[in-house]
Amino acid sequence: MPHLRKDPLSDRWVIYAEGREQRPNEFERVERRRADAQCPFCVGNEENTPPAIAVYRAVAGTSASNGDDWTVRVVPNKYPALLASGCADPTQSGIYVLCDAVGAHEVIVETPRHVASLTQLTPQEARLLMRVYSDRIRALQTQPGVQYALVFKNVGPEAGASLEHSHSQIVGTPMVPSEVQRELVACRRLYRQHKQCFFCYVIQDELDHRLRLAAESDRFAAICPYASRTPFELWVLPRQHQSHFERQSPDQLEELADFLQHTIGLLESQHTQFAYNYFLHTAPFDTAPLRHYHWHIEIFPRLTTTAGFEWGAGCFINPVPPEQAAAVLRSNGTHPT
Amino acid sequence: MPHLRKDPLSDRWVIYAEGREQRPNEFERVERRRADAQCPFCVGNEENTPPAIAVYRAVAGTSASNGDDWTVRVVPNKYPALLASGCADPTQSGIYVLCDAVGAHEVIVETPRHVASLTQLTPQEARLLMRVYSDRIRALQTQPGVQYALVFKNVGPEAGASLEHSHSQIVGTPMVPSEVQRELVACRRLYRQHKQCFFCYVIQDELDHRLRLAAESDRFAAICPYASRTPFELWVLPRQHQSHFERQSPDQLEELADFLQHTIGLLESQHTQFAYNYFLHTAPFDTAPLRHYHWHIEIFPRLTTTAGFEWGAGCFINPVPPEQAAAVLRSNGTHPT
Repeated sequence: MPHLRKDPLSDRWVIYAEGREQRPNEFERVERRRADAQCPFCVGNEENTPPAIAVYRAVAGTSASNGDDWTVRVVPNKYPALLASGCADPTQSGIYVLCDAVGAHEVIVETPRHVASLTQLTPQEARLLMRVYSDRIRALQTQPGVQYALVFKNVGPEAGASLEHSHSQIVGTPMVPSEVQRELVACRRLYRQHKQCFFCYVIQDELDHRLRLAAESDRFAAICPYASRTPFELWVLPRQHQSHFERQSPDQLEELADFLQHTIGLLESQHTQFAYNYFLHTAPFDTAPLRHYHWHIEIFPRLTTTAGFEWGAGCFINPVPPEQAAAVLRSNGTHPT
Repeated sequence: MPHLRKDPLSDRWVIYAEGREQRPNEFERVERRRADAQCPFCVGNEENTPPAIAVYRAVAGTSASNGDDWTVRVVPNKYPALLASGCADPTQSGIYVLCDAVGAHEVIVETPRHVASLTQLTPQEARLLMRVYSDRIRALQTQPGVQYALVFKNVGPEAGASLEHSHSQIVGTPMVPSEVQRELVACRRLYRQHKQCFFCYVIQDELDHRLRLAAESDRFAAICPYASRTPFELWVLPRQHQSHFERQSPDQLEELADFLQHTIGLLESQHTQFAYNYFLHTAPFDTAPLRHYHWHIEIFPRLTTTAGFEWGAGCFINPVPPEQAAAVLRSNGTHPT
């Protein structure tokens, strides 16, 4: 039975998704799936995924079927890390704490065509994708036991993508994930200290001095954070304060799609076969608009490998300062190749 | 100039080791070095490393030279992440905190022969290596500005090893690394709650019930931790309470070498081309023996890839529960193939 366990020292949760594999060799199976020529996400292969949760057409709106007349499809993950049933309350077992793996694990197939990166979507597909993120967060808010929805995307084998066809995932979890919780606590503390949202301060500082600004549009900024963990780490943020991703207007969502494609394009023009993750950090479901928290998408390039020092110390070694990375990306943006 | 920056949200430090590369493509250079047939760590190539800090011979004790009559060699890292000079006090820059990259970065070449894993060392080499770990921790305790010494080892390209020849590294840092600090704080809290060292409790529990015990010797135990982040994660711990690695007796260090080789051998007999990191968590320099902290070596297998969910949530997905991993390793140990 899938379940979550809490590490007593770090308070990190670990999901035990035994259903993902009967044998202790899940890693080998992933390799085999990657090599499979028959892509379950390509148009015409809809029967190779579980029945769709939602189907989006570029013009006519949404429906729910396994037909092939779709632009974006949302399906349950075939190997879900979390399940719809169970009890979301943690229980004690001696000194240990565990919890049923209650939640959701959905896959968003971003296009019927076999392409690999967000930048290969048509602008129409990318805009639809941002709307789907927003819709699915709202949908998971109504599911019992789900406290948070984490949207993320893996591109390239180095980034842990087990299928090449461009897709995102959304995991509904029975608690706010520790990385988000840590940000929320720090942002509340910084707000009390400085009477300002931390991210609003960073955005204004970077727009004023342009030290780590990689790109900007009317409503968005792309910034290499001051303490970037990896070369070319990037945050995409709305310039106006906003805590909840899903409260964006349709106009803003469209601009976000264009800006995110542009920003990842800058990274790809600098690095061939660029592998990356991105993930959305947004305020938890059950909150009114928060003055101290600011949603953002973190783009996490996989140009380097984490080694023993990073895992043992919790400290990254980064050979490229964010000022240098931002300057390279800015020059790409202004002088397109 | 290399320096450290603190992330305002996570309090994680990041080392900016610009000296490691002039261009923003350190990652490509690492690939090239890996492909280089001329191994700088093989006997006879001593001039390809900086002059040795210490040279150990199996019989005649230590000396310091670049000759070829050695068993274990300690040399400065050619691309150091931290340097001997600078000011170890953090300074404020607006809302940000930074610090000179004061410290040390040493490489321990474990054998004159070109082998790749700890298990390929002779028992004599492995025993000498444990003594070197202990000696180098003591040596770094006397270096101004160094607060901690993290010993680690990377084996295999998936684990971030840039050179194949079996080697360890030791990084002296100007602060206690956040992963260690977090353990210290949690262990102090758990000690107050339970009037017992957390690790002592775990060792006794696993020796009693053998749910997650992978191997044991007179003085050591190898345990798959309750909330293992990755398949086959393992902790190697002394059965008797001890907070500081470097306070072990010569006898105990020898038994540790044998036991660590045995334990990694169990993992390698289960997985071909097994890539792993290990790192030593021990009490900080400036403390008397601690009742609440227990040194241990964490073996971190690299069988799976971290993806967007792990980085975005701070939560791992593990398809192999530690009970299953330990049972597999135990059966390997009792029925050698």
